[in-house]
Amino acid sequence: MIQHIPSLEKLVNELAKLPGVGPKTAQRLAYHILRSPAAYNDNLRAALEGVKNSVHECARCFSFTENADLCHYCLDPKRTDESICIVEDPADIIRIDTSGAFRGRYHVLHGTLSPLDGVGPKDIRLEPLLERVTREPIREIILALDADLEGDTTALYTAKQLRGLNLTAQDGTRRPLRISRLAHGIPIGGDIDYMDYRTIGRAIENRVEL
Amino acid sequence: MIQHIPSLEKLVNELAKLPGVGPKTAQRLAYHILRSPAAYNDNLRAALEGVKNSVHECARCFSFTENADLCHYCLDPKRTDESICIVEDPADIIRIDTSGAFRGRYHVLHGTLSPLDGVGPKDIRLEPLLERVTREPIREIILALDADLEGDTTALYTAKQLRGLNLTAQDGTRRPLRISRLAHGIPIGGDIDYMDYRTIGRAIENRVEL
Repeated sequence: MIQHIPSLEKLVNELAKLPGVGPKTAQRLAYHILRSPAAYNDNLRAALEGVKNSVHECARCFSFTENADLCHYCLDPKRTDESICIVEDPADIIRIDTSGAFRGRYHVLHGTLSPLDGVGPKDIRLEPLLERVTREPIREIILALDADLEGDTTALYTAKQLRGLNLTAQDGTRRPLRISRLAHGIPIGGDIDYMDYRTIGRAIENRVEL
Repeated sequence: MIQHIPSLEKLVNELAKLPGVGPKTAQRLAYHILRSPAAYNDNLRAALEGVKNSVHECARCFSFTENADLCHYCLDPKRTDESICIVEDPADIIRIDTSGAFRGRYHVLHGTLSPLDGVGPKDIRLEPLLERVTREPIREIILALDADLEGDTTALYTAKQLRGLNLTAQDGTRRPLRISRLAHGIPIGGDIDYMDYRTIGRAIENRVEL
């Protein structure tokens, strides 16, 4: 669609690069910004500049933080150092943490293995994970990756690499490592009528005794 | 949702003020921006600054432009000055213009009358429209407003004000003014099964001989 206004077209183009924002939505957003008081434009730019200048990756788990070194989750004294949960993206941490079911530390891979797209083990934060597991007193790993092909591939590869590590506890004995992944099954509130057969198959395999 | 990162929370809050963007979408967008190369953040801020500094309202029709005075539509020599199309928002112009069915000038009201929200005739660009119709050789007005209560109210009020004007042609005779609004009916490709009874009623009333 021709706008006849180059600076407006530029804004529409930039907004259309955001996920889930097509050209029509981008145009609606750009016009909304134009109609809003100038202060909104200023505040939005200041917020963008804020994240650019302040937010960086945590030195230990690679989640986002604006602390000097370690993130909120790595600094929290109420969490155990013995369990870590492996996620693909920093945003996944919020989802998992609000469930309240996990109170350990995290590790963000920043991607999943995808041989078809040329994403190999060196392209995600896997090497630092292996070093971290060797160095820290970790005894449990939960792989919280998406239930798709890339997520499964990454989970299996990561588990294999972890099992190959030679871990020692503080007293010099061999340190065991429990590795698990999230359960597959029917989501809470889910209707069996609408589930695909693979989900139902997994839910039956992993059935829980009552 | 708690982010534990104040600058990220600020960005999520600003993005959530955009139309159609809820807190979850805002969070997804903010994380996407964080994961993108820093150049994207820079380009988006530059584009926002660009529209803030360059785009303003056209002195004649109040659509948006970055020209010194008049907009693309007002400067176009191929358009007739005798027909003007009244719209609520500058974005409506693009939609109407790409239809190719209208090649006159535009006038943007920047809002519709809404007594319940305290929006009266002084709050929209109605007075400049009346002056413009008196001054320019306009002979046809098309009211292209939304088919809702505010749009209908604004169309009826505007038509009444326009009919009250005392217009003279260049030769000193009375200048007639044809006033119309967009037709209501079944949208192209629309399924009668899914139309509400008021639309069907209008489509029957306004039926076209074949």
